[in-house]
Amino acid sequence: MDLIRGKRELQLRADAERAGGHRIALVPTMGALHAGHLSLVELARSRTDRVWVSIFVNPTQFNQNSDFEGYPRDLEADIETCRANGVDLVYAPEVADLYPQDDQTWVDVEELSRPLCGARRPGHFRGVATVVAKLLLAAKPHVAIFGEKDFQQLAIIRRMVGDLGIDVEILGGPILREPDGLALSSRNVHLGPAAREQAVALVEALDAVERLVASGERSRDTLVAALRARLGEAPLAVIDYAELRDPDTLELAPETLSGPVLLALAVNFQRDPSGAGAPVRLIDNRVVVAVPREP
Amino acid sequence: MDLIRGKRELQLRADAERAGGHRIALVPTMGALHAGHLSLVELARSRTDRVWVSIFVNPTQFNQNSDFEGYPRDLEADIETCRANGVDLVYAPEVADLYPQDDQTWVDVEELSRPLCGARRPGHFRGVATVVAKLLLAAKPHVAIFGEKDFQQLAIIRRMVGDLGIDVEILGGPILREPDGLALSSRNVHLGPAAREQAVALVEALDAVERLVASGERSRDTLVAALRARLGEAPLAVIDYAELRDPDTLELAPETLSGPVLLALAVNFQRDPSGAGAPVRLIDNRVVVAVPREP
Repeated sequence: MDLIRGKRELQLRADAERAGGHRIALVPTMGALHAGHLSLVELARSRTDRVWVSIFVNPTQFNQNSDFEGYPRDLEADIETCRANGVDLVYAPEVADLYPQDDQTWVDVEELSRPLCGARRPGHFRGVATVVAKLLLAAKPHVAIFGEKDFQQLAIIRRMVGDLGIDVEILGGPILREPDGLALSSRNVHLGPAAREQAVALVEALDAVERLVASGERSRDTLVAALRARLGEAPLAVIDYAELRDPDTLELAPETLSGPVLLALAVNFQRDPSGAGAPVRLIDNRVVVAVPREP
Repeated sequence: MDLIRGKRELQLRADAERAGGHRIALVPTMGALHAGHLSLVELARSRTDRVWVSIFVNPTQFNQNSDFEGYPRDLEADIETCRANGVDLVYAPEVADLYPQDDQTWVDVEELSRPLCGARRPGHFRGVATVVAKLLLAAKPHVAIFGEKDFQQLAIIRRMVGDLGIDVEILGGPILREPDGLALSSRNVHLGPAAREQAVALVEALDAVERLVASGERSRDTLVAALRARLGEAPLAVIDYAELRDPDTLELAPETLSGPVLLALAVNFQRDPSGAGAPVRLIDNRVVVAVPREP
């Protein structure tokens, strides 16, 4: 497995692989690799003969510097994980490799960046879109793979690639979960035992509302109330948002559902009952289909 | 010579040319081709074995729809000009090919877009940066060539390409001029005879100030006054800006010049003395070097 630190070297490698008839899949990550990332690596392996992973904690997508500084990092362990899982190449640049001096160029996907996490984290998705554009231009992959846990991020990346015409196929990989249903996330390590136990509230809220929809409930407000009610049972949880939205446009779902609808959750968890430490922000989502009822 | 109307077809062609070991130069244009464009085609020919020209009047860089609608267009003549000048391929897309439905992605080069034309034409350079990114991603050239008459545009494109890491070399082509010195521009056709005669004021203002600098004048304000004085001799001219700026950062030049300085002019010309018709906006520029004086 190769480790590349510089964008220019990566581009030359991409050109050589392409000239040799190989196909490249890129899995962009911020490191702290877990089984969720590895499922994306597996998906990549099923699609191309060159599997590349980028590891870069992107400063421009963090709202607080403390969150950026505190983001879990262990490059050596991540590189070892990649090696053990058949990754062909790791691109792990320094910040200056992707953000040159006097960098002043931003990629903005406007409408899709406004609601949900975009409303709570100003500039977050501008940072995401910009760094993903840079990573795609550096690695020149045929396919790039992102987890569906970050649903809005994936929607924004698909739209950016389509709008700008970047010649790459974007694939989403399904959410991986712990045995109790908690979605895998690099942030889960920050949860104390009590918070970890209560964090199952997110997936159970999604489960509950999916069942309500399956049993015929079509009122958006009733379903939102059901999401909030289940989250409210976790004393360490503070709801950031719990919303029903159109999975394509991310606009608010209609009052009476019909067709596919995105259930989107973001919850700030206290790390433990003492209240010490910054809260841990967890997100989860699911797309359910409100099948039109018989007339 | 080939004519391609669709981005996807162009990308496949670019991949095939690259796989065959060829090098592509792209000359992006808005059509209405004149000798200035052809000098860029010649420069392209000296650098690569595949010379491509794009012809696209980009709606997102116009501030008034009337200016967009009124921009000179003659695709058939432009295609014939390309054919006669050894161009290998023309890419002439429809708007929907570069701006898909619900397009909402913008590329913004912040600081460099603020002064000069950016201050007078809000959103103009965001439109330019976005469409140039799209064109580069569609044609995948090794080299892309832009005229130096649009100095700020060229600076913004260089910065965008560097910041995003687009794998292309950006080249500037020198300004071409009429025998009396007027910089070639597709807009010159709109000038009536009197305005056309007076339009030489721009280059003569640049000449005058270049001579003043060469003879030792170092006061920014004195030189700006000299630019404005020469432009003021043209009764049909209304100065939009006449400024001295740093050629790299586009920040205001220091009060006492030292080193390279950009002289930048934009002037709105009445088409003719009757005052009828929208004014014609002409720009011109020159970089001169204020050599430090002997102590």
